[in-house]
Formats: sequence, structure tokens, C-alpha cells
Amino acid sequence: MVTRMSRLFLRTLREDPADAEVPSHRLLVRAGYVRRAAPGIYSWLPLGLRVLRKIETIVREEMDRMGAQEVSFPALLPKEPYEATGRWVEYGDNLFRLQDRRGTDMLLGPTHEEMFTLLVKDLYSSYKDLPLSIYQIQTKYRDEARPRAGLLRGREFVMKDSYSFDVTDDGLRRSYADHREAYIRIFDRLGLDYVIVQAVSGAMGGSASEEFLATATNGEDTYVRSPGGYAANVEAVTTVAPAPLDDAAIAALPAAHVEDTPDTPTIESLVALANERFPRADRPWTAADTLKNVVVWVRQPDGSREVLVVGIPGDRELDLKRLEAQLAPGEIDAFEDADFAKHPALVRGYIGPEALGEESESGIRFLTDPRVVAGTAWLTGANQPGKHVFDLVCGRDFTADGTVEAAEVRPGDPAPDGSGPLELARGIEMGHIFQLGRKYAEALGLQVLDENGKLVTVTMGSYGVGVSRAVAAIVENSHDEAGIVWPAEVAPYDVHLVATGKDAEIFDAAASLAEELEAAGVEVLYDDRPKVSPGVKFKDAELIGVPTIVVVGRGLAEGVVEVKDRLTGVRENVPLDDVVAQLAAR
Amino acid sequence: MVTRMSRLFLRTLREDPADAEVPSHRLLVRAGYVRRAAPGIYSWLPLGLRVLRKIETIVREEMDRMGAQEVSFPALLPKEPYEATGRWVEYGDNLFRLQDRRGTDMLLGPTHEEMFTLLVKDLYSSYKDLPLSIYQIQTKYRDEARPRAGLLRGREFVMKDSYSFDVTDDGLRRSYADHREAYIRIFDRLGLDYVIVQAVSGAMGGSASEEFLATATNGEDTYVRSPGGYAANVEAVTTVAPAPLDDAAIAALPAAHVEDTPDTPTIESLVALANERFPRADRPWTAADTLKNVVVWVRQPDGSREVLVVGIPGDRELDLKRLEAQLAPGEIDAFEDADFAKHPALVRGYIGPEALGEESESGIRFLTDPRVVAGTAWLTGANQPGKHVFDLVCGRDFTADGTVEAAEVRPGDPAPDGSGPLELARGIEMGHIFQLGRKYAEALGLQVLDENGKLVTVTMGSYGVGVSRAVAAIVENSHDEAGIVWPAEVAPYDVHLVATGKDAEIFDAAASLAEELEAAGVEVLYDDRPKVSPGVKFKDAELIGVPTIVVVGRGLAEGVVEVKDRLTGVRENVPLDDVVAQLAAR
Repeated sequence: MVTRMSRLFLRTLREDPADAEVPSHRLLVRAGYVRRAAPGIYSWLPLGLRVLRKIETIVREEMDRMGAQEVSFPALLPKEPYEATGRWVEYGDNLFRLQDRRGTDMLLGPTHEEMFTLLVKDLYSSYKDLPLSIYQIQTKYRDEARPRAGLLRGREFVMKDSYSFDVTDDGLRRSYADHREAYIRIFDRLGLDYVIVQAVSGAMGGSASEEFLATATNGEDTYVRSPGGYAANVEAVTTVAPAPLDDAAIAALPAAHVEDTPDTPTIESLVALANERFPRADRPWTAADTLKNVVVWVRQPDGSREVLVVGIPGDRELDLKRLEAQLAPGEIDAFEDADFAKHPALVRGYIGPEALGEESESGIRFLTDPRVVAGTAWLTGANQPGKHVFDLVCGRDFTADGTVEAAEVRPGDPAPDGSGPLELARGIEMGHIFQLGRKYAEALGLQVLDENGKLVTVTMGSYGVGVSRAVAAIVENSHDEAGIVWPAEVAPYDVHLVATGKDAEIFDAAASLAEELEAAGVEVLYDDRPKVSPGVKFKDAELIGVPTIVVVGRGLAEGVVEVKDRLTGVRENVPLDDVVAQLAAR
Repeated sequence: MVTRMSRLFLRTLREDPADAEVPSHRLLVRAGYVRRAAPGIYSWLPLGLRVLRKIETIVREEMDRMGAQEVSFPALLPKEPYEATGRWVEYGDNLFRLQDRRGTDMLLGPTHEEMFTLLVKDLYSSYKDLPLSIYQIQTKYRDEARPRAGLLRGREFVMKDSYSFDVTDDGLRRSYADHREAYIRIFDRLGLDYVIVQAVSGAMGGSASEEFLATATNGEDTYVRSPGGYAANVEAVTTVAPAPLDDAAIAALPAAHVEDTPDTPTIESLVALANERFPRADRPWTAADTLKNVVVWVRQPDGSREVLVVGIPGDRELDLKRLEAQLAPGEIDAFEDADFAKHPALVRGYIGPEALGEESESGIRFLTDPRVVAGTAWLTGANQPGKHVFDLVCGRDFTADGTVEAAEVRPGDPAPDGSGPLELARGIEMGHIFQLGRKYAEALGLQVLDENGKLVTVTMGSYGVGVSRAVAAIVENSHDEAGIVWPAEVAPYDVHLVATGKDAEIFDAAASLAEELEAAGVEVLYDDRPKVSPGVKFKDAELIGVPTIVVVGRGLAEGVVEVKDRLTGVRENVPLDDVVAQLAAR
């Protein structure tokens, strides 16, 4: 059926919406694909829904092709399964909770591990039933602290989530590999420019985990890559640490000594003073010689808080996202002035390792950067105002409670696999594949009988694709000043047909052409608006972003129409008699 | 792609689920179409999802054909629009309400009049943009007091809701008629046995309104029909009242007289006493001569309550559903013993019209059955213990505050349009079409410029189809002892192919046949389970209800397969070489 612009429920806007921060948000609202209903919650207009459905279809086809089976779960869910796995609490404020008329606690599903696990437990009981991969394309809810960037981070959104069930670890690896291949096909078909990066599993538990990131300069996620092919989400990067020294080598190091270091509130001022008053013969002091001890609160989902000090080389910033990824589901709160007053062991500006650690008098947990290995010597706080300690040696003068990946990753840092220096880039998380392992199956009692008639716990994988987010990510990947440039397979239409001028003949010819194209399997958006100027029509066509724009206008007298490629801008005149065959062949 | 039972995520049950009250619930769970996730909330297994999608497709095709445009709104909605129309309160406990992390009130949409109205207001401003019909197929939420009957009355369910927008009343009537035709096509294609009945518009406001009911002996809705073609939801039936008498005729009636009527707690005992002690010459007293005054509370959504007395002929019961439909959004609560103690004007068992009415001393609202017209004389309470009044004449001795349709409708009652005696039947509400009028547009300020450049308020229609409910209603309509019997257009598959025995030859032939059928456009569910007995396979096939069952078994040696019609049970042997052509032609 030809869609006529004169009847299409659409209004394009010349101005950017006031709240739009990113191109996809700006363009999808201006071109009439979506409208905001509430913060982070959008309505889909006819054009937007067509794109969403095409993406859903691609995802569905590829999931079916890999042998996954489609099901559909409710969004409104009972609390109990999420309590059994701890996520009712772990999700914290990100979970939409509500009570029904009887006062029963319920939630809006942010992801469905629990429900899938219970359904498989309900239906299956034998190893012969496995492996199994089941999926849904469904509306999900997350009460984001800062819903933003339009569809990129919403509170109600469409996801494909799937779950694999296997008896053995090898089986899980195969299911994971199958999903990985299906995801590659999906993102290829979506026309996205993307990378696959190693990821940390975060609140989901489990082991191996990778993310599919659409490259985007304004993406929320930072990832790294090396010339040798290493790629990881920045939260997942592991630090290349120096080799520790043995006891004999450590014993040969100079002894630690405390010095007056007045007026050194910053690493920079400390380094300057050290070089002026305590110069080293072989090389100057640098920020990398200092150990900066940063105090934070770690808040658990149940509201409990613990003080944590993180020791990192003074030349690097603390990366809170990396730190939080390590401490999940704990979240970081700032340590305030009033908090220092209550913790006299923490001498602000002069905190040193000797006052820290669970075994120390303060009992304060102390984690250090992986570079802080036995035998490394540091210039750091002496736990007295105005004093620092020099040559404080790890493994001799202090021992931390463990290491933590919390220092920023910088361009030029070595890849952990030795594949060269890292470079940093930004992306949008489009897919995530996890080897969950047995965490959920254990919590919910999903066991099957194995070949020997013994009950064994099933091992699971969890796999997500951001379907509504993909609409925006594709626009981030593919737009120009004039508007959206849809890749062919997800475009709302194949051809945007524009009739110009006032001649009934032109409109008649255009209407016939539209029908012929549809009959040939080409989806047509026909701009038949009688009193709209060609200029406005062309602007709308560029904004809406259908891959091929066909103009029926003055050329009709010579039997030609203009065919324009939205991406390249290339125009050519094509004989009216050839145009259907030519476009149907694209 | 051929679906193989050996890999299908399915488990059929031999036993009925304990909580299943109706055949559709029982069979859909047993045959592995759905599973309960929480009260009134279901998960869709692969078979169920296929049926749901086929129904969605039929609905979508017919809505598109009538020129409606598909959009999609969120389920999680802001409170403000629903406050503007009063429905935030009116919905009472039926609305799922929640707060987000900032404490902002939100709701899960039960229906979307407000959001559609606001979207049209956002996009459109001129009469030239109208008429417009837009729809969505979307998940809706209603916190039912008693979720029951499986998918028939759930708390999370899929609906198609559409809304029409017109400038004129004539336009609204055309949009309504277009929807009515589309609905007829939809329900025809769904293979449902249904009736179209007049309905009351209830909490939705507005005027003309019809329901599409699937006929079902255990349906929740009662409707009436007459030989002349009248059909109405029982709530919408209007009573045929006698002609009132004029003042002269009333004056000629016998005067009212109060009599002692001890020990007459029931209408029956009162009538018996009247015939014994106060016999009439011309005819005996009957229950239809008495006026029964029933006291109830009317509770408004804001919690306020008012006492209401309803006077109906004593030979009829009060129909609470009919009464509530008249008083919506008010709901009825029982008037308790303690309430009588606080209202001395209401003499329990002897309540009479003379103590009632907003103008009376009691000020208690009094509504009567439409049969209580001027000049009708009644035997009714005298507002004194043990006394009734005879010959109390409406319009002379008492006047009510108005009439109300609250008496039960009985078989044999006359149709209001004179088309004969009514008969009663039961059904399941599958669709509802409303002329809403300007209520929502006024509340939310939806105006457009008319041809004269004047702002006019838009008039709207609202139209719903229960999509997930249709899955169950079709099963109610179409099943037998052995299982479900799907109509062709909504069946999960076209052919259920069963391979029996142990010969590899049979399984090879069946597998080839399955592939050939799929290639010919026939959707096949292939029961390839190697170690399952033919009996179990046949039972499963009957239970699952695919229209055509093909058995590849011993006949293969003679080159035939058995083709069985699930509905009629007719079997025939068909040469293997002909079966694809024969089934593809169905």
C-alpha cells in the first residue's frame, strides 16, 4: 500500500527540540519518528514504528536462524524470583517497583533471567531437553537516574533478550559462540559500524562477557583497542603490572623516611617540592612516583556503607566507572568534609598506607592499583599534617588488602595481551553477551537429570540487543547536516517519491509510478501534498532519510524522472519506463 | 523453517492445571501455549506466541485497510493527562499506579485516550489534517479485583486500541462506521462466532457504543436478542414502560391506605397476606404489584459515598451490573446493619416512597424503575414496622428523583424497539466501539482551525479489540474433549505432521515431506520425537489443535499417508506424491 504524505500522521519540524542533546534525538524528533511522552519515555509515530519493526524483524530472523525459539514474558512481574536472586535489592533505585491493589510487591522487568530460569524449570527436567536457547523481543523498564539522549538511554525501551541453557561448560561456550555469530549477522544487517569488546559482567554475575558497541564520538561507553586487535570496554581493561621484586632485592632498597612537605595540597606541588628539597641523583621525581590515596564510600543496594581508600599512582585520575564496575553492585558516594571529621585516622591531604588496611588500627579497607607490587617504592602521605613519606616500599613497609582496577586508562597504555599501545574511542552499547554460569540456576533450583540419572545444575548464558536503542544508534552512525541517511535494510521506505509543481499530469504520473513500484515490491512514501513547495518537499525528504529519492517534475515532459541517492547525493535522470525495473533491482 | 517437536520448547500436560476454571485456560496451559507468571499475568510459549502474532496480523491488516495508521505508545505513562480528564481518580483500584525514583506519580496505561489526544494536539492544527484514525497493538494493564479465567480477564494483556479524530459529528459517524466494518472483517477472519450488541459507554463517556461479543456459554457478559434483530448488552437494555395516566385518570384511582402486614419479611409473604386479608375483586395481588425499595451505597472514585434507594417491581431482582453501568464511575457497596441504625428514616423491610427523595425530609436519593410511571399504583412499604401501604400512586402520592435501569432483564421482556420478546445469552467481550464525542478533546484542549479559521474542538471515537483475549475466546468457541480446534487463519501451524514407528525410512520420508510442505508455503509442526509412542503423539496433536494432521506410518509401504481433519475427524489416505499439492491448495 502506497503511503501518501498528505494523509500520513507526521509533522516535520524545522527547529531542533529544546531538550535534544544528540543528533539522533534531534533528527528522530524533527523528522517525525518519535515524540517524548515523559522523561526517557517515547511514543512511536508511523515512520518510527516502521523502522523499529524492521530492526525487530532482522533480530528475529537471525535468532530463529541460530535455532533460538521466541517466547514472550510479561513486563509486570512478581517480586519473589527477584528476591531469590538478590536482584530485588541489588537493582536499587533502577528498578520500577509497585504494589497491586492487594499490596503485593511487583516490579517492571529490567531483564528476565529469573523468569526464563523458572519457565525452563517448569517445563524441562532432562539433559535431553538441552541445549535450549529462548528469546523475546519485549518492552523493558529501568528507572535511570538521568534518562537522556532520546532513545539512547530511556526508561521504557525495547530489547531482545535471550538465554541459553546447557548442562556442560562446553555447551555454554557453544551457545555463547552461536549467539556471538548471530549478533555479528544482526549488526552487519543493521548497517552499523561496530566493534566487539571484552566487558566486565557487572551486576549480572558470571564469567566471559563481550559487548557490541556502535562506534560514536558521543557514545556513553569508552573502549580501548590495540594495533594487535585487542579491544575492551574501558571497565574491563586489566593493567599491565611490573614484576614484583624478591625479598632480597626489597631488602636492598633505601629505608623509608618522613619529611616535612608544607603547602603541598596537590600532586604537582608535592612533586615540585620533592625535586627542590629532596632531589634524586638519577632522575627527577614525577607524579608517577607518588601514591595518591583517595577515600570514597561504597554503598551497597541495601543502603549499608563502608569506607574505602584506593591507592593509585599520582599521575592518574581515579576512574569512578572502572571502580564501580569492580565493586558492583556497590556504588560510590563522595567522602565529604563531615566524614573526615568523623574519621581522625584519615588525615586529609596526607593519607598514607601505614594507617590503612583491614589489619591496621583504623580497620579501613585499602585497595591499590595493580602497579603497586612488592618492591615498588612510593612518595605518599605520612598520616600527619604537612608530612609525606619517601621510599615507602610495598611489601616491606605496607601491604594493601588487595588490588583494584580503578585508575584511568590512557592512550598509549600497553594492551594486557601484549598487542601494543591502546587507543581510546567511544561507542554505544548495542549488544551484550554473557556466560552467566550457574548463578541463577542455583538460586532458583534449575536442575536436570544428566546421562547418569544424577541431578545437575544447569549453566546459563544471557544475551541482549538494544532494539529501540538501535534506531537511534543507526542515526548516530548515519546522518548528515540535512537529516537522516537510513541504511537500506532498516529504512522506513525504499523510495521517497516527490511530485513537484501544480500539473495534474505530474501528480497522475507520480501516483501511477508509486503504484507500480509497490507492485514491484518497492516500498514507497509518496509526497503528494498539493500545495507544498518543491523546496519544502526536498527538505523533508532529506530529513526523513529514505535511501532513494525520486522526483517527478518538469522532466516528465521529456519522459524522465530524477533519481537521487540520499547518501551520495548523486542524481541522474532515468526514463520513466525504466525506473521501476531499476529501483526494484536495488 | 520446519518446527521439530523434538526441539520445540513445549511440554504438554495430561492433567488440568488446578487453577483453570474455563476450557480455554485449561487447554491453553495443557497444550503448552501459555504459562502463568503471576495472578492474571501470563508468559507466552512458542506455540502461543505464534497464535497471538497471527491474530495481531489480522487486526493490523484490517486496520491498515480501513486507512488507520499504526503508532505505538508507552505503557508507563505520566499522571498529568489522566488527572486532566479525571481518570487518575475514576479508575480507582483498577489502575496500577507507581512512583519513579524522584517520587513522580506514574501509571501503567489501561487505555490511551489521553495520550492519543495529546499527540494529535502536538502534531495537528487544521481541519485539513482530519479525519485521522490511529491505532496501536500494545500491552495494557488493569489491576482487576478478580483476575480469572486465564487470558479472558488478565491484568497484563494485549489490545488493539484506536482513536478517530473528526471535526464534525457526521465525520465521527463515518469513522465509527469504518471501524465497525473493519471489526466485522476482523472477527470474521478470526473464525469467531460473535454478535454485535448495543452497549452503554460506561466510564468512557460519549454516546453511541456497540460491543462485539464472542458467543460463549460461560462468557462474563450477558446480552439479549430479539427475533426482530435487536441485540444489546444487558446493561444497555432500556425498559419498555407503560404509558403514564393523565391527571384526571389518576384522580379517579382509589386512595392509598396503610394496613397492618405483620410477618411479611419477603415479597412472597407480603403477596400471600395481601391476597388473604385484602383480596382484590378483579385479580389477585402478585409480586409485580409490589414496589421493592432497595438501599445501597454509591461510592465515588474519590471515596465519597451517598445513600441511594432504588425502587423496582417486586417480581424482579436488582441487577447490580446494570445499576453500576448507570451510575459509573460510581460503584455499589452493600448497605449494612450498622448503616440502618444510623438512618432511622429507613425502616428496614418497610421502606416506602413517602420517606424518600431529595425533596423529602430524609433527603435520601430515590430512583425508580422506568415502569414506575405516573398513574401506576403500588403495594409498598409504609415506613413503619409491620405496615405496608396499598394503592400508592406514582405522580399523586409520591414522585421519585428520576428513573434508573436497574431491574433484571428477563427472557420474554419486550425489546425496546418493538422487535419482539428478548432472549438472553452469554458472551465474551472481544471488541468495543464508542463515539466518545468531545469529552477528551475538551479536557485536553484539542482544537483545530476550521474552514473559516475558527478554532473548533475535535470529536473523537475510541475502538478496542482484545487481542490476547481473542486467543482464549477462539478456544472457547472451538474445542472438543480432546483439545483445541484452531480455525485455519489463526492456527499456529497449517499441518501437524506425525511420524510413527521406528523405521528410519518413515522418519526420512516425513522429514522430506515436512521440507516440501514448507517450501510450498505450508507451515509444519513435525513430530519427529523418536521414542514417543504413536498414541502419545496423536493425543498431543489433538490437544494442540492444528487443523490438519498428517500421519506418516505403515501406509508408507503402499505410498500413502493419512490426512486427518482435526475438526471433523475425517481421515483419508492420500498418495505421498499428491499430498503436498493437496495441502498447499487448502
